[in-house]
Amino acid sequence: MRSSLRALFGIELPIIQAPMAGVQGSPLAIAVSNAGGLGSLPCAMLGPDALRAELAAIKAQTTKPYNVNFFCHPTPTPDPAREAAWRATLAPYYQQLGIDASVVASGPVRAAFAPELVELLAEFKPPVVSFHFGLPAPELLARLRRWGAKIVSSATTLDEALWLEARGVDAIIAQGLEAGGHRGMFLSDDLTRQVGTFALLPQIVRAVKTPVIAAGGIADANGVAAALALGAAGVQIGTAYLLCPEATTSALHRATLASDAARHTAITNVFSGRPARGIVNRVIRELGAMSAVAPAFPLAAAAMMPLRAAAEARGSSDFSPLWSGQNPSGCKEIAAAQLTRELAARA
Amino acid sequence: MRSSLRALFGIELPIIQAPMAGVQGSPLAIAVSNAGGLGSLPCAMLGPDALRAELAAIKAQTTKPYNVNFFCHPTPTPDPAREAAWRATLAPYYQQLGIDASVVASGPVRAAFAPELVELLAEFKPPVVSFHFGLPAPELLARLRRWGAKIVSSATTLDEALWLEARGVDAIIAQGLEAGGHRGMFLSDDLTRQVGTFALLPQIVRAVKTPVIAAGGIADANGVAAALALGAAGVQIGTAYLLCPEATTSALHRATLASDAARHTAITNVFSGRPARGIVNRVIRELGAMSAVAPAFPLAAAAMMPLRAAAEARGSSDFSPLWSGQNPSGCKEIAAAQLTRELAARA
Repeated sequence: MRSSLRALFGIELPIIQAPMAGVQGSPLAIAVSNAGGLGSLPCAMLGPDALRAELAAIKAQTTKPYNVNFFCHPTPTPDPAREAAWRATLAPYYQQLGIDASVVASGPVRAAFAPELVELLAEFKPPVVSFHFGLPAPELLARLRRWGAKIVSSATTLDEALWLEARGVDAIIAQGLEAGGHRGMFLSDDLTRQVGTFALLPQIVRAVKTPVIAAGGIADANGVAAALALGAAGVQIGTAYLLCPEATTSALHRATLASDAARHTAITNVFSGRPARGIVNRVIRELGAMSAVAPAFPLAAAAMMPLRAAAEARGSSDFSPLWSGQNPSGCKEIAAAQLTRELAARA
Repeated sequence: MRSSLRALFGIELPIIQAPMAGVQGSPLAIAVSNAGGLGSLPCAMLGPDALRAELAAIKAQTTKPYNVNFFCHPTPTPDPAREAAWRATLAPYYQQLGIDASVVASGPVRAAFAPELVELLAEFKPPVVSFHFGLPAPELLARLRRWGAKIVSSATTLDEALWLEARGVDAIIAQGLEAGGHRGMFLSDDLTRQVGTFALLPQIVRAVKTPVIAAGGIADANGVAAALALGAAGVQIGTAYLLCPEATTSALHRATLASDAARHTAITNVFSGRPARGIVNRVIRELGAMSAVAPAFPLAAAAMMPLRAAAEARGSSDFSPLWSGQNPSGCKEIAAAQLTRELAARA
């Protein structure tokens, strides 16, 4: 028998709130954990001080298990020619929005998991640590395990699931093609290898002994029931939480999620350099969803950020990453605790 | 309450065997119908005489309901320049395989539904008629309805489902991105609008009153249970039947389906001119899955067929359309009747 996710994490409901960098912090995680699910803190865009403050907030407001999530991409080598080509591509937009291109910053706006973070985490001993884009070095994982942290990562293909199982993770997230935000893909950058949840989940369940968490397209209690029928030990849900008051989703992003525009998402690399699913907007339409010019992750983001800021200041989401999965039908403007309980109604 | 698919079609099990032109004929349809599911005869590649013979075979061998499936694409205008460019693209392969390019035929190898077919069908009065790529003209549908035929078509987006419901179909197939063979898409040719089953199915179920049949990635009894949990009235399954003895799947295709190569499928237009999912092989890898040069459907096929024939004669599937969905894990070398009963075990 596949061990129960509830037993593994010590949670009451088999619902993991997906970590969503940029649209939520500790309040959403706390609400979900206190409701009996597993709340998640996205850490990729937090510096050490902000991370400590968020962890302290969680510690102060819940005694329940929670998850902290990190990216563990390789550090890219800056490529001045590619950066220049990217800025040349964006130059007409800088001009339209009155941005002085000469002062646009460069460099990474998302950090990879690093040894010094382990010491910081050790102060708080988070019960679950999840990773995106593979896993960090084995010695770092060993240090996390010293306080009993469970290790989780995402697989977007069967090969990635087998790779994670061979490295001893405690649970594998089967991230189907429907999922919003960054694809966790790490063994291949070929998007044709990305698989829908209905196909990915049962094939991973069949191939591994590790508990499997379903992600991608799950938006309501029926979706949770369907994922469990396919052999999942639990589910990870992101998009449905984006309208909750505890999320920091912008008003523009909220309005788009609630509109017909949310029917059309695409996997795009224009916001960060890695494929991620968001609602199609002007910059995706005009540059193409997958740009051959965008610098390597996470370097593409820096040049896009001032465009986003300038456009948003004018009430436009033309340059905003409007992260969403392919099933926004579960988005509700209700408290995250209530949504968590509703999601678990058939579990 | 959503009306039951079983009541609608008069079948015992909510399992529709997907029509799969080129890899099956009446024997598979008969076996599935006799087992209590809905067997399907793919008619797109049958001339009138062959169609009549197949319908006669079905009538002789089952008294149960069955489905006949037609394509209803617009007839393309031949484009000599595009045809020439396509042949130039394929020229190195003709040379490698010793094919005299000057005798390669052109023209359509798949026929669209046409008025004269209605008279032929009227002799047999098939209880269910399904379409791919939209619907034929309303007057043709009206004639099919005279003998009580139920009309079914596929939706790959929410918009297509609403379009079909407005035209009064009796059931809508929600064809998720995972599905093998041709995408039924007909309102947009933008592949980023294609949605995984986990996201597509519940959104269509929520938006229409018509019964919804789930397709794409469903491979076993758990998959059927999951689709029903998401609100489907039944399922349509293709890939899982490809290894059944009643299918005419080639030995090369069977061997590939049973190998690790089946883990990697792609949506490609190189075999027909329209996007269709098959296992990635040499011609997909070398031309790219979506070719900008391929002539409009179904004209791309003619120039590819001699390559397939020559390669297959040498034991190679380098140029064969190896249709498969993203979940080949349900393929079993067992009788179609037994597979049908196994698929319905949790329904």
